[in-house]
Amino acid sequence: MNNLKTIRLGLLGCGTVGTGVLKILAGNAKDIEGRLGARLEVTRILVTELERERDAAVPSELLTLDPADVLQSDDVDVVAEVMGGYEPARTHVLAALAAGKHVVTANKALLARHGLEIFEAATAAKRDVIFEASVGGGMPIIRTLREGLAADHVETLHAIINGTSNYILSAMADEGDSYHDALEKAQALGFAEADPTLDVGGGDAAQKLSILISLAFGCHVPFSEIRTVGIDSVEDVDIRYAREFGYAMKPLAVARAHEGGIEARVHPALVPTSGSLAAVHGAFNAVRLESRALGPLLLQGQGAGMLPTASAVVSDAVELGRNLLRGTSGRLPHLAFHEGQALIGGLEDAGAARHPWYLRVPVRDELGVLGQITQGLGAAGISVSRILQDRPSPDGPVQVVLMTHSATFASVLQFESSVRGETCCLGAVQAIPIEDGV
Amino acid sequence: MNNLKTIRLGLLGCGTVGTGVLKILAGNAKDIEGRLGARLEVTRILVTELERERDAAVPSELLTLDPADVLQSDDVDVVAEVMGGYEPARTHVLAALAAGKHVVTANKALLARHGLEIFEAATAAKRDVIFEASVGGGMPIIRTLREGLAADHVETLHAIINGTSNYILSAMADEGDSYHDALEKAQALGFAEADPTLDVGGGDAAQKLSILISLAFGCHVPFSEIRTVGIDSVEDVDIRYAREFGYAMKPLAVARAHEGGIEARVHPALVPTSGSLAAVHGAFNAVRLESRALGPLLLQGQGAGMLPTASAVVSDAVELGRNLLRGTSGRLPHLAFHEGQALIGGLEDAGAARHPWYLRVPVRDELGVLGQITQGLGAAGISVSRILQDRPSPDGPVQVVLMTHSATFASVLQFESSVRGETCCLGAVQAIPIEDGV
Repeated sequence: MNNLKTIRLGLLGCGTVGTGVLKILAGNAKDIEGRLGARLEVTRILVTELERERDAAVPSELLTLDPADVLQSDDVDVVAEVMGGYEPARTHVLAALAAGKHVVTANKALLARHGLEIFEAATAAKRDVIFEASVGGGMPIIRTLREGLAADHVETLHAIINGTSNYILSAMADEGDSYHDALEKAQALGFAEADPTLDVGGGDAAQKLSILISLAFGCHVPFSEIRTVGIDSVEDVDIRYAREFGYAMKPLAVARAHEGGIEARVHPALVPTSGSLAAVHGAFNAVRLESRALGPLLLQGQGAGMLPTASAVVSDAVELGRNLLRGTSGRLPHLAFHEGQALIGGLEDAGAARHPWYLRVPVRDELGVLGQITQGLGAAGISVSRILQDRPSPDGPVQVVLMTHSATFASVLQFESSVRGETCCLGAVQAIPIEDGV
Repeated sequence: MNNLKTIRLGLLGCGTVGTGVLKILAGNAKDIEGRLGARLEVTRILVTELERERDAAVPSELLTLDPADVLQSDDVDVVAEVMGGYEPARTHVLAALAAGKHVVTANKALLARHGLEIFEAATAAKRDVIFEASVGGGMPIIRTLREGLAADHVETLHAIINGTSNYILSAMADEGDSYHDALEKAQALGFAEADPTLDVGGGDAAQKLSILISLAFGCHVPFSEIRTVGIDSVEDVDIRYAREFGYAMKPLAVARAHEGGIEARVHPALVPTSGSLAAVHGAFNAVRLESRALGPLLLQGQGAGMLPTASAVVSDAVELGRNLLRGTSGRLPHLAFHEGQALIGGLEDAGAARHPWYLRVPVRDELGVLGQITQGLGAAGISVSRILQDRPSPDGPVQVVLMTHSATFASVLQFESSVRGETCCLGAVQAIPIEDGV
């Protein structure tokens, strides 16, 4: 064991994930040496404060306030960016590449916004940037898309990739919690940030979906252009009615390849209770892919948390270490496809997305209301499969709940605007996509 | 696109999987070129008969009866062994390596019996042998163990890796089929071989488990030494009683790392109906890993069939093509761990495996029987959690069904032999492991 080489890792940041990396390197050293055929050691750690109280796993002698101590150091082969945020992460990653380091990053926001710039810089510098931890924590969804499915044509992708949202909807469904109670629990458990907007509003999932779309379909879709609806739009009654119809409410990111472009959307959705996504509870993540040859493939695991996320960072460092030991790099295109090889164009118009819907219309309790609603649906070209009328509280509105056959988002918008004009309608229409067969 | 290089594939065999490889290369050519940055083409196909009727995807001008036309050809970079069986597959793979070819194989039997010899030859020849299709069809379980979990310490593995067995138990549970009817259906659907012994007897799963154990724990366990019980031991009543206790019957391969060695076993097992493995229906496969940092990870997909299996063969060919284009090889140790890096010793004594059990004892309908049984259990040190007494048919025996707390296999054997001596006992004890929390 004395002839073992060492792959030297520089950390940018030492928060939750960085501390997790140090814990894993210490706890799993024998496994990692056995698999890598070399030691994997952290040699430098960039922090913003030297004196803060830290976990015992953090060796204080490696801490530095000067980025150059990590980025320019001769003692660093691989830089792991675990600081999060756009800046200075972007500047540091570009500097690391310019200095000849390979880079691991766990930062989906950085990649979703600055990925193309970073991957271009990496290609120019003949260095690799890999990022398994950026989506789905330690669940190897990025490896699966870049390598496992390298022979296949991905057709659809359904993902539960925001653990906070899944935790909240699960708590509402299983414990009967209100949205606000569930959110508070998630914050107390450390799943949700103090400002949960990015999680519950769907922005986090949209960033991750844009990365997955690049890898699955070879096409670059800005996350800001993905139609995104947060789970904060879901009410308790929606979860209850969904269940009566045999569905569970899940926070989904969906993408589907069409001839003309990519259908992509992030929203709460109804999935059949008997299917595999309905069984993904709590803060767990899952990705279900449907491909031409392989058919359905499901991955399910912990999408967040110190050790799961850090395990993906370290396995990426092992991958780069394996390349360094063989003197190779650039084996895989960063975004799975070689340049100019996109399979399809860009994002399809959101209005064109076509699938069944759950629609709930709060109405006045008077004769002829159902006629007005079904007329509005007919005019929009929407055909109904099931209807339920309910008055959940004696002094509240009557809820007309409809399950539709496949209809476009554009036709649902048309229905919403026609119903809004009716005097019988007492509030906004709740319109939630239904994803069958997942 | 005219400057694209070509990676040339020689096929050994052109049965179901070989034909699937040709179909995928034709159907997904654009995806594969985009991901590989080169064309992937079959240039030679070894068959045993030239004149047989074949799928239109098979170009007859590439067929040859002479192994040297594939193994020695200058027009072949990568050899894909899709013929199955031990010989001549072994001889051909060794010859391909000696001739400087990299090898893909889908042959779990070959690897389980001759893997060490083949990997040694590959290392000596500085060539790679990869084998994603050998376990779990196109489900990327082997990549996940070799790369995704490279930073982690795998603790337990629960796998449904024989699709035929899962299909049969699912049909018995969901359709109420008898074992024999379910087997006939599986044969009619093409899941089960004419001689289903290797599938329903557990041998196929044991071969696959021995490969997974190498990759997860870095330790080589001959499949013939793994305790293996087939699903042909399950009776209809066992499935029914299991359900009454909240469990489903699944064909499992289980491995767990202990200080002293590996616990490994293949058998039908009871898994909680609310868990993720109970939801793996029909011919689907799944592997559930529990690792120190990542926690639980589930992969689920089609474990067999022409296109799923062939998709794994082609993605392996893409991997080797990516290496060839970069002039690299030997990036990963064949069995995930470098030599001499096994984490634990060999196989633990089967008697030491400890978990809860489902026990069913067919007995005479007379006073004091339950006392005799519970006395036998007590003497063997087995503690009971639940008891059910039932007489499924008026002229058949009474069935005493017991759920136990954790107990070793050795203690269950002791109980069985003590009960066998009692006059009240009308047949063999049915003893089936219970796996909770999966």
